[in-house]
Amino acid sequence: MKLVIANKNYSSWSMRPWLAAKAAGITFDEEMIWLRRPETAALIRVQSPNGRVPALIDGDTIVFESIAILEYLAEVAPALWPENPGERAHARSISAEMHAGFLPLRRACPMNIKRRPASIALDADVQANVERVIDLIAGCRARFGRDGAFLFGQAFSNADAMWAPVVNRLHVYDIPVPPIVRRYMDAVMATPMWREWEEAALAETEIIADIDAVA
Amino acid sequence: MKLVIANKNYSSWSMRPWLAAKAAGITFDEEMIWLRRPETAALIRVQSPNGRVPALIDGDTIVFESIAILEYLAEVAPALWPENPGERAHARSISAEMHAGFLPLRRACPMNIKRRPASIALDADVQANVERVIDLIAGCRARFGRDGAFLFGQAFSNADAMWAPVVNRLHVYDIPVPPIVRRYMDAVMATPMWREWEEAALAETEIIADIDAVA
Repeated sequence: MKLVIANKNYSSWSMRPWLAAKAAGITFDEEMIWLRRPETAALIRVQSPNGRVPALIDGDTIVFESIAILEYLAEVAPALWPENPGERAHARSISAEMHAGFLPLRRACPMNIKRRPASIALDADVQANVERVIDLIAGCRARFGRDGAFLFGQAFSNADAMWAPVVNRLHVYDIPVPPIVRRYMDAVMATPMWREWEEAALAETEIIADIDAVA
Repeated sequence: MKLVIANKNYSSWSMRPWLAAKAAGITFDEEMIWLRRPETAALIRVQSPNGRVPALIDGDTIVFESIAILEYLAEVAPALWPENPGERAHARSISAEMHAGFLPLRRACPMNIKRRPASIALDADVQANVERVIDLIAGCRARFGRDGAFLFGQAFSNADAMWAPVVNRLHVYDIPVPPIVRRYMDAVMATPMWREWEEAALAETEIIADIDAVA
């Protein structure tokens, strides 16, 4: 399998299947396509029919869209979804909500691993997104977290992968969260795969100035 | 199981899991919440934690977001996804692209079952969406349609359900499509579950004036 991704510092979509595959112990090659270069669009188009990263290439099969890649990984490693059907349904529901929603938050607070945590003013739409994010994390932890640190207990699931970029956003834009959410964020950011991604992001020299300028 | 939906004439999201469940022979109750009434938001919030329809309620489990509901249905009726893993991955990829994408098309050409087919001017963003839609339908039919009428052959799949509202949009806004796409549209619109949904939509008396006014 080869996973086509973009800048680890900035590409929230790339991060999701990368973390899930690492969490599941699935080995894969990766190919980096740097964002915002003259050749970026053409390079992506060669690999990914919808013109976006990430894409997972497995022989003749090209899987695109993060949530479809996560389902593909879960067919190899079923533990990426919770075993209980009701919990699995909830995990898929909140993953799908993240896939299509939270646009104001995603636009105002782009993922930026290198950013030194500092707060910014949030407009009402973004604040409403933040409240929903906090509700979903806190609710999931309370109902399904049991003795584990992740959304559905001890195993880092596809839902945690889908939500990982939001952990970065809450952290680097220094958004106030209740302790149950802070503990969850700390647990995600302490995983070996997060650390590996972060280390690679910190080593990148590519700059996207308008993202770095968010203040 | 109970499926909470909105106006059959207008609610594209509601249509998707409803068609899939019918196609799979899954029995369910339905509860209609009429859109754009003073009580609409409150009624939805009681049933659906993300404040949107559709939602599927199965005992203690509330499944929200169409694509998560479709996955839930496919656990009951696995034939809702293609059996071949590569085809299944493609079906999930294009379903996920529909779940999160095509916003210009969705905004400019809202689903409207009752609309008498008539063309409108499409701006460049919408036109680009239309071209991608046509490419995906035609490509899927050519590669995976075999001797069947649907995207992945003889069985109406979750991908057909996700794409059904776009069939209505292409039809009622009279958007030019190649014959391979027109034949697909006709096949979808001839299914018993489409006819049943359409008949109920035609019988509705609720009007959403700004959608009916698109011209």
